[in-house]
Amino acid sequence: MTNGATFTVATLQERVEAIFKKAGLNKVQAGALARVLAAGERDHCKSHGVYRIEGALRTVKAGKVNPTAIPELVEQEASAIVRVDAKSGFSYPAFELGLPVLAERAHKHGLAALVVNDCSHFTALWPEVEAVTAYGLATLIMCPSYATVAPAGGTKPLLGTNPYAFGWPRENKPPYVFDFATSVAARGEIELHRRAGKQLPEGWAIDSEGNPTTDPETALAGAMLPFGGHKGSAISTMIELLAAIMIGDRTSPEVLDYLGTTTLSPMHGELILAFSPEAFSAGRPGNPFERAESFFEAIVAQGARLPSQRRFDARKKSESEGISLSAAEVELLDRLYEQGLDAVSL
Amino acid sequence: MTNGATFTVATLQERVEAIFKKAGLNKVQAGALARVLAAGERDHCKSHGVYRIEGALRTVKAGKVNPTAIPELVEQEASAIVRVDAKSGFSYPAFELGLPVLAERAHKHGLAALVVNDCSHFTALWPEVEAVTAYGLATLIMCPSYATVAPAGGTKPLLGTNPYAFGWPRENKPPYVFDFATSVAARGEIELHRRAGKQLPEGWAIDSEGNPTTDPETALAGAMLPFGGHKGSAISTMIELLAAIMIGDRTSPEVLDYLGTTTLSPMHGELILAFSPEAFSAGRPGNPFERAESFFEAIVAQGARLPSQRRFDARKKSESEGISLSAAEVELLDRLYEQGLDAVSL
Repeated sequence: MTNGATFTVATLQERVEAIFKKAGLNKVQAGALARVLAAGERDHCKSHGVYRIEGALRTVKAGKVNPTAIPELVEQEASAIVRVDAKSGFSYPAFELGLPVLAERAHKHGLAALVVNDCSHFTALWPEVEAVTAYGLATLIMCPSYATVAPAGGTKPLLGTNPYAFGWPRENKPPYVFDFATSVAARGEIELHRRAGKQLPEGWAIDSEGNPTTDPETALAGAMLPFGGHKGSAISTMIELLAAIMIGDRTSPEVLDYLGTTTLSPMHGELILAFSPEAFSAGRPGNPFERAESFFEAIVAQGARLPSQRRFDARKKSESEGISLSAAEVELLDRLYEQGLDAVSL
Repeated sequence: MTNGATFTVATLQERVEAIFKKAGLNKVQAGALARVLAAGERDHCKSHGVYRIEGALRTVKAGKVNPTAIPELVEQEASAIVRVDAKSGFSYPAFELGLPVLAERAHKHGLAALVVNDCSHFTALWPEVEAVTAYGLATLIMCPSYATVAPAGGTKPLLGTNPYAFGWPRENKPPYVFDFATSVAARGEIELHRRAGKQLPEGWAIDSEGNPTTDPETALAGAMLPFGGHKGSAISTMIELLAAIMIGDRTSPEVLDYLGTTTLSPMHGELILAFSPEAFSAGRPGNPFERAESFFEAIVAQGARLPSQRRFDARKKSESEGISLSAAEVELLDRLYEQGLDAVSL
C-alpha cells in the first residue's frame, strides 16, 4: 500500500517527465507535457493534472500522435503570423517553441498571431494564456475539438466543445484569465451524471432527434448544446472558422472522422492572438495596466469574482505547502512509470 | 396626411443625408450616417434604421458629439495597428476612413487592427462587419457601451451591453455575420415590457440589491445580466479591456459618467480586427473559403439557421421591391428635415 505524497512543482514535473520519457516520448514532448500537467496539479485543476497522463499515453499507443515529434517554426517574412508545425506531436511543445517569436512580433507590429498546426491537444488553454501574458501581452486563444455539440436550432453533433480563453497581464499578480468550453457543460460532466444515475439539468443536451433531454444516456447518443443559446453557438462556429478552417487545419467533425472516437486527444490546430497594450494605447491618455486594475477592483468591490481566482488561491497554497497527491494518484504514477504504454488500453 | 412611400436605397440615403446636413452635420458625417441608416432600413433592421436619426440629432443638440468633425488617420509606422481619431464625431465616418488602410495592412501582415478613438457610436456593428468582409477578410469587432449590466455574481451596473460581432467572407453571397449584445436582452426590450405592463422573463435582470427580478421598473433601477452567466460576463469584461482600456478610450462606466444619461449616443472607442484567410492558410491543404461553405451547409442541413439570415432575406426583398416606409415614418422624415435640432428635446 503506497501512501500519499507531497511534491514541489519541480519534483512533480520530474516525475511526470520520467513517465513520458520511459513511454517513448522525446525530451521536447515529455518536458513540455510535464510542465503543463504539473501546473494543472499545482492549481488544483484536477481534470487537467496527472489524471491526463493516461489519455496522452493512450493517444500515443493508438498511433494518433507522434511521441518523438520535433516542432518546427515555419517562417513567414514581413508577417504578423508566426506558424509552428507541431509535426503531429503534442500542442504544448509547439506552443513553447512559437511563444518567444509571437511575443517579439506582437511587440513589433502591435498584434500578432501564433498558428499551431497538426497538434494533439489535451491541455487546458490557461497555461498558454498565462505564458503569453508573462510577456506583457493580452491574448485570445481558441481551438476546435470533437463534434459533440449541436448548433443552436440543430439536431446533430457538429461543433466541438471549442474552448475560448483570454488573458490580460497584471503586475505582481496572476493575470486576468478566463478559459471555458463554449458548450453548456463538458462531456465528462454528462458521463459523471450517467455513472451517478442522476438526471441532467435542463438545457444541457438534446436526443438524436433534436428534442431536449435530461437523460444522460440519451444525451450521450444525441448532442450537447452550446452555452448561451444562439450566441454561444455563433461563437463556437467562429472558432471552427478561425481556429480550424482559416488556419488550414481540421474542424471538429473532421477530428472525429480522423480519430473515430472521443477517447483520444484531438489532432487539429490552435490559434493564439497576442496584443500589445502599450502599442494600442500609445499616444492616448491613461496607463492601460493601471486602468485595468481599477476596473478589476470595481468588479470585486460589488462581490463578483474574477475568473480563475479559485485556481490562483490553490496555486498559492501549493507554492507554500507543496502539491499533495493521494495514495491512489501516487500508485497511478508508479504504475504508469513501470508499465508505460502497457498501462493503458485502447 | 402623408402617405407611406417606397424608396430605393439611394433615394432613402439622399433623404437622410439631407436631414443631417440641414441639422448642421458636415458632408463626411451626414453621408456616412445616411449610408449606415439606409442599410438598416434596407435590411428591415428597424431598430437601426431611420428611427435612430432622432437619437443622433439629440446627441448633437446635447453637445456630446461634434457634427462637423473630420476624422483623421493617425499613422503608426511598421505597425499592424491603424488608428483613426474620430475627433468626437460619429463612429461610422471614422470607420470608413480607416477601412481601406486596415484592409491593406491585414493583407500585408496577415492580420491587423483598426482602432477608432473618440467616436459617438449608435449604429449596429454588422454594417462594419460586412464592409471588412468585402475585402476578403474575416473580422471581429467589439466596443463598450454604458454601464447598465452587472458582472455575474455582482449587484450593480458596471459593464455595458457591449456588442460583439464577427464576419467571414463568402463568394457571391452575403457573409457569415453575427452581431449581438453580451447582455441577455437589450435595455430597450425591458423598456418595452414596462410600457406593456408585462413581467420580464427570468434571468434578464436583478434589483438594486442584486436579487433576481422580473419587474421591469425594478430592473431598470437595478441592472441587466450578461448572457450565458459567468461566460458571457467574462466576454463582456474582455470587451472593456480590449476595446476601451487597451485602446486608451472610455470604459462603460466612464461613458455613463461623461454623458450622465443613457438617452444619448455613447462616446468611446471601437476595436476592429481583420484576418486574411489567405495568409493564415498559406501552405496548408484545402481552400478555406470552400471549406467554410461545406461547414455552413452542414449547419443548414440539420435545420439550424445561419445568423443574419432574416436580415439578408429582407435585403433581397428591398432590392427588388424597394424600401417601404409607413406614413408615420415619412412624416417623421419630413418633420426632422423641416425642424432639424428643434425636432428633438433633451
